[in-house]
Amino acid sequence: MRNFADRLIELIDTLENPSCVGLDPRIADIPELIKAEAVALHGNTLESIAKAFFEFNKRLVDATYDIIPAYKLQIAFYEAYGVHGFEALEMTVSHIKRRRRLVILDAKRGDIGSTARAYADAYLGSVELCDRSKAPPPIAADAMTVNPYFGYDGIKPFLEACRHGRGVFIVVKTSNPSSKEFQNLRLADGSEFYEAVARKVAEWGAQFVGSSGYSAVGMVIGATFPAEAKRCREIARNAIALVPGYGYQGGRAEDIIPLFNDDGLGAIINSSRGIIFAYKDERFKAESFEASARRAAIAMREDIVAALRDAGICRW
Amino acid sequence: MRNFADRLIELIDTLENPSCVGLDPRIADIPELIKAEAVALHGNTLESIAKAFFEFNKRLVDATYDIIPAYKLQIAFYEAYGVHGFEALEMTVSHIKRRRRLVILDAKRGDIGSTARAYADAYLGSVELCDRSKAPPPIAADAMTVNPYFGYDGIKPFLEACRHGRGVFIVVKTSNPSSKEFQNLRLADGSEFYEAVARKVAEWGAQFVGSSGYSAVGMVIGATFPAEAKRCREIARNAIALVPGYGYQGGRAEDIIPLFNDDGLGAIINSSRGIIFAYKDERFKAESFEASARRAAIAMREDIVAALRDAGICRW
Repeated sequence: MRNFADRLIELIDTLENPSCVGLDPRIADIPELIKAEAVALHGNTLESIAKAFFEFNKRLVDATYDIIPAYKLQIAFYEAYGVHGFEALEMTVSHIKRRRRLVILDAKRGDIGSTARAYADAYLGSVELCDRSKAPPPIAADAMTVNPYFGYDGIKPFLEACRHGRGVFIVVKTSNPSSKEFQNLRLADGSEFYEAVARKVAEWGAQFVGSSGYSAVGMVIGATFPAEAKRCREIARNAIALVPGYGYQGGRAEDIIPLFNDDGLGAIINSSRGIIFAYKDERFKAESFEASARRAAIAMREDIVAALRDAGICRW
Repeated sequence: MRNFADRLIELIDTLENPSCVGLDPRIADIPELIKAEAVALHGNTLESIAKAFFEFNKRLVDATYDIIPAYKLQIAFYEAYGVHGFEALEMTVSHIKRRRRLVILDAKRGDIGSTARAYADAYLGSVELCDRSKAPPPIAADAMTVNPYFGYDGIKPFLEACRHGRGVFIVVKTSNPSSKEFQNLRLADGSEFYEAVARKVAEWGAQFVGSSGYSAVGMVIGATFPAEAKRCREIARNAIALVPGYGYQGGRAEDIIPLFNDDGLGAIINSSRGIIFAYKDERFKAESFEASARRAAIAMREDIVAALRDAGICRW
């Protein structure tokens, strides 16, 4: 399979949109009509959660995939419901693939080598059956987020998946207020901890640069810290930044501009709550929740493209 | 519910055994007879994996729970099989609870606040249904491992679970060779990165110290770095160290002694492959795989107790 960065950039260019939608369902925020349908069939059970999550996601994907290159799924919201949450996750991933869009699994997994191998197999590789034959994993993502804390041997199995068209986004600087506690610790060499991680992202990713000039090894950089974003962009020029925190968490379009290179590429901006629960927002009032989500997704794209134009680096 | 550290120490004292068994099933290493049973029922399918994993785990628990206070489940090996892996995980957790032993979920989750809340709810709290009522999560652990990279707001939801009898083990220094890449980075204040994390473990855990003198907020410290282990013990005296890496990964009983305090408490030593796949080891030859596992578990306990006696800190 072609290099992940090339695949992602091709879709970004085709749709002229460097953003993705986060499918992070929370049952309390899912529209009542979706829940009522599920409860009518399965009562107030975990089966209903699976049904409601998938129906919600499916309608969102169908209403946005003509403008959205990739969907980011925060696995925490699915895991909470065990078997039934995973059922919704499996069906959602399959549906996104049917629509020929990319699946970024936001799992932030990280562990020592042998366990990291299990995680890489689980989401980017293949799994072994009883007779030792291999099968595709039930949840086969195009890329996933990983935690760097374990160093190279915890990252290596994910890098191997990058040889086969998959991608990883290594967590560098996160969008939350306390991210500074560890990520901005000052090192003896004068740099900050997140910079050491960004340097490793550049080093590990060097051998996975595709024809687009970008690597299948990307980085997660929160939209809420523009100075750190700029520094990471300088350190790891070939890494695509996956940028959560836009919208709901306070990141603004001008804040994410430092994450793009002069070619107008280098970042994919995610919004979750701001899109999928847009039906609660007066600005995006429409005939259905999915129509609201579409409006919000278009507004996000326009907002980012306008900021890229202002910066003189829009490629479309 | 009583403080997690108190519950764990009570079981350790009752069984006179500060060790736990890691239930990390790998299909290639599971005995053929277990796989044959599963395949006879379900063919070479993911259903067979669920059946084989649970049967394997159940027999291991039944053969060891009279000597083992807690089981550590590495969730990566279950996740790989999606819905079917989670089915095996749910059944295994229920079985361990039926045997009145503690479940430590080795998930190393970590994320920003709102997602960390979802993970804490998923494994240590409760989940919301369609009608907004709360239900126990499908996989309700007694404690779980968490990644500190996101700082306090990513840890807070897990600390809240510590108010309700649950525990967390924060990853501080891991057993793998590359753990030094980030964890041993020298900081501007002269200490190393893992020490900064250990200091936070002590700080965050202070309010969760039970009548045992230990906190429900523990730390993960690999058995393979005795100098770092000693330093963490000094920094976070009330934190229980969960210690992977004993046995298979090269950690020896004398290496883990620095993780105990003078009262003979303060650590719980885990072995996974060395116990559950002991049937492959000539030293533990027995009439069944579970009998081999039991022998290996007894040998591990004897090894640790002998080292504690040599150090003059054995409490039994």
